Amino acid sequence: MQTNLALFTDLYELSMAQAYFDEAMTEKAVFSLFVRRLPSRRNYLLACGLDTVLDYLENLRFEEEDIAYLASLGKFSERFLDYLRDFRFSGSVYAVPEGTPVFANEPLLEVEAPLLEAQIIETFVMNQMHVQTVLASKAQRLVTAAEGRPVIDFGPRRMHGVDAALKAARAFYIGGVAATSNVLAGKVYQVPVAGTMAHSYIQAHDDEREAFRNFVHLYPNTILLVDTYDTLEGVRRAIELSETLGEEFKIRGVRLDSGDLLKLSREVRQLLDQAGMSHVEILVSGGLDEDKIADLVAAQAPIDGYGVGTSMGVSQDAPDLDIAYKLCEYAGKGRLKLSTGKPILPGRKQVFRVSDQGEFQQDVIARVDEDQPGRPLLEAVMQEGKRLEAGRVSLESARAYASEQLASLPDSVRAIRPPESPYSVKISSRLSDYQKEVEDRVQESMEVV
Amino acid sequence: MQTNLALFTDLYELSMAQAYFDEAMTEKAVFSLFVRRLPSRRNYLLACGLDTVLDYLENLRFEEEDIAYLASLGKFSERFLDYLRDFRFSGSVYAVPEGTPVFANEPLLEVEAPLLEAQIIETFVMNQMHVQTVLASKAQRLVTAAEGRPVIDFGPRRMHGVDAALKAARAFYIGGVAATSNVLAGKVYQVPVAGTMAHSYIQAHDDEREAFRNFVHLYPNTILLVDTYDTLEGVRRAIELSETLGEEFKIRGVRLDSGDLLKLSREVRQLLDQAGMSHVEILVSGGLDEDKIADLVAAQAPIDGYGVGTSMGVSQDAPDLDIAYKLCEYAGKGRLKLSTGKPILPGRKQVFRVSDQGEFQQDVIARVDEDQPGRPLLEAVMQEGKRLEAGRVSLESARAYASEQLASLPDSVRAIRPPESPYSVKISSRLSDYQKEVEDRVQESMEVV
Repeated sequence: MQTNLALFTDLYELSMAQAYFDEAMTEKAVFSLFVRRLPSRRNYLLACGLDTVLDYLENLRFEEEDIAYLASLGKFSERFLDYLRDFRFSGSVYAVPEGTPVFANEPLLEVEAPLLEAQIIETFVMNQMHVQTVLASKAQRLVTAAEGRPVIDFGPRRMHGVDAALKAARAFYIGGVAATSNVLAGKVYQVPVAGTMAHSYIQAHDDEREAFRNFVHLYPNTILLVDTYDTLEGVRRAIELSETLGEEFKIRGVRLDSGDLLKLSREVRQLLDQAGMSHVEILVSGGLDEDKIADLVAAQAPIDGYGVGTSMGVSQDAPDLDIAYKLCEYAGKGRLKLSTGKPILPGRKQVFRVSDQGEFQQDVIARVDEDQPGRPLLEAVMQEGKRLEAGRVSLESARAYASEQLASLPDSVRAIRPPESPYSVKISSRLSDYQKEVEDRVQESMEVV
Repeated sequence: MQTNLALFTDLYELSMAQAYFDEAMTEKAVFSLFVRRLPSRRNYLLACGLDTVLDYLENLRFEEEDIAYLASLGKFSERFLDYLRDFRFSGSVYAVPEGTPVFANEPLLEVEAPLLEAQIIETFVMNQMHVQTVLASKAQRLVTAAEGRPVIDFGPRRMHGVDAALKAARAFYIGGVAATSNVLAGKVYQVPVAGTMAHSYIQAHDDEREAFRNFVHLYPNTILLVDTYDTLEGVRRAIELSETLGEEFKIRGVRLDSGDLLKLSREVRQLLDQAGMSHVEILVSGGLDEDKIADLVAAQAPIDGYGVGTSMGVSQDAPDLDIAYKLCEYAGKGRLKLSTGKPILPGRKQVFRVSDQGEFQQDVIARVDEDQPGRPLLEAVMQEGKRLEAGRVSLESARAYASEQLASLPDSVRAIRPPESPYSVKISSRLSDYQKEVEDRVQESMEVV
């Protein structure tokens, strides 16, 4: 994998950058990153990815090999390539903290920087804010459905590449997931790692009992996978071993990975309880999503934890967001476009969140200098290319903050089903007037012949 | 991003590995990687990812910092960590070439290696074969729909992370995509890079004409984005500039990114043709997928190329596959499991593809030593941890091979709509008998008390 990500950008960013450079368009620009509309199965999104973005901005450099590749394209001048050699991001970033619930059209972050700088970071900034927000938002649905029982990330094998699996583990952790199977994520982000055993371990032994016995010998208080051949028979064997071997065969739980999980979990619970093993937990996995978990929880399935892979790992029901990173101000003037169905709110903005008795009631998207009731969500996290204190938030703090914020969402918004009335997001009259004003100016420029 | 990927593995792989190590289970194992069933909107899959996997296997090493992290988990013995310090993958890989169309239950690759080695590579091997096969297969649908017109990858901003966007560019290229906007992919894989301009470039100028003029001045024969304010007005301006500036304003094409693309492309074509600019191409983008492209092609929209982002970039209609990597042999004995609905074909296998007059007719999945009619798809690509010649295929060759193979698929299978009768994949009677035999052996082991 690549460590230097300066070239992780769309070619047109660099083409435009060179044009700005040639045209001496060096004034400040504001770009706003927001999601145009929520997917039908998302009542809110959980903002995530900021820490990765700030890290990238602080370290963004074009290495000689990058310059050499760009030169090979025959599209860039020596002067511009020289400029890139010394490139540093020198702008400001305003953002909602990671773990903030956000809604359509609300800026997750705004970048204020010389036009060229704000332009060429577009691809990476969008990519990371997108994937991490997609995954944190999905994870929260599974966590909500599990009603307090731990949800564990088993998804790395079917996530989209190594970077997604790594960033997923951090996004999931912010979203309330208890642990990941991803060892690299454990090392990089210090998130808790967890895992049991796979079918291959059982299969490789000629006898399931032998496999159970050997594994428990090495890992006392482990979790046994019991469905390789027959779930109930597997559990009976574990019980038998426990009765025969006593102290030498202590298990913490069993995992069921196939079949009718409601029925099986009840039968397994009964077998375990009858054997005096009521302390042994039941963990389930295998094609789970938030709906299946909610059904199991509603049916009071005796399940103590959920291992979730693909549906969470690729955010199966909404693998992408209609996310945008749009120029909304340049050289002090508000900017927008008039393209069908894709409006832009011009200028720097603030989102004010109004609460009543600790419950979020309504958001107002306003111009940045407005004084509105409610808590302003966007804060300065980077200035002159350097992180500010507000841009240094530990993963544990982000997780705690997310949990606290989510607790303040109205129940119907936090729920996995669509709310009867969606959360109210208004645009302030000043911002709305300003949008009209900028539109009029643009319209006028179109009419001049 | 991380360059050392040894820890990109599920924790349980290492737990099992230590157990195999302690139990001295050092015999050879065979793991088979296959997709259990095709998504409803996939008539076939395009195998992809092998080159990345072989590269990983050749370079897999545990560094001291990996060992230190593992030691910190308090789960692994000094003896086992010492073993990992010297770990090298020493096994064999048999695989279908990248760009081979494959169907449900057909092995994309089989790994034959000491059990422990074949086990701990599971997560990475699955992750990369999965994402690249998902993306190549999706890309091919867009390429098929475009009927010869170029499809260009504009997706990096909404793909799942940096690695996905990088691997996508190579998978897309194998799948027939003409170019990518991803500069890093251009550098790493030498795939063609392409791009035009974004709305922000137009917006940053006070006057769209000025933006057009400056951009064309710097990039003669470029493609102009014309829909920032009003598509037809944008085109009229480009024509006007062309008429006024003559040789100084030469464009290769215009890009439409919003609105009714069929209607607009026709109107734009007419405007351009009337102005004697019939050489100017029309490129479209904006929320395109294979269905929309097929509709535009069927309606004979005068469109010369398609820029595709999110739907291809996350494989929106099928972001994941039910892919599995399963132990099917250990110590010379066939292995399987009996878990509900997840059968395994035991032992090493071969897939024979029968053609008639250059068109694929049927596949037979057989035991590896069977002599069946048809072309055997799996070949040895790695032995004793070293790549064989068949494992060194350039990206260009893989792309050419894919194109040739796809041309041999029955039309109804290559099509984007489901075929009336799916492609026939049979299991040889010897394999089927062997499966029964192994099942009986496993059943017996379950009955012994």
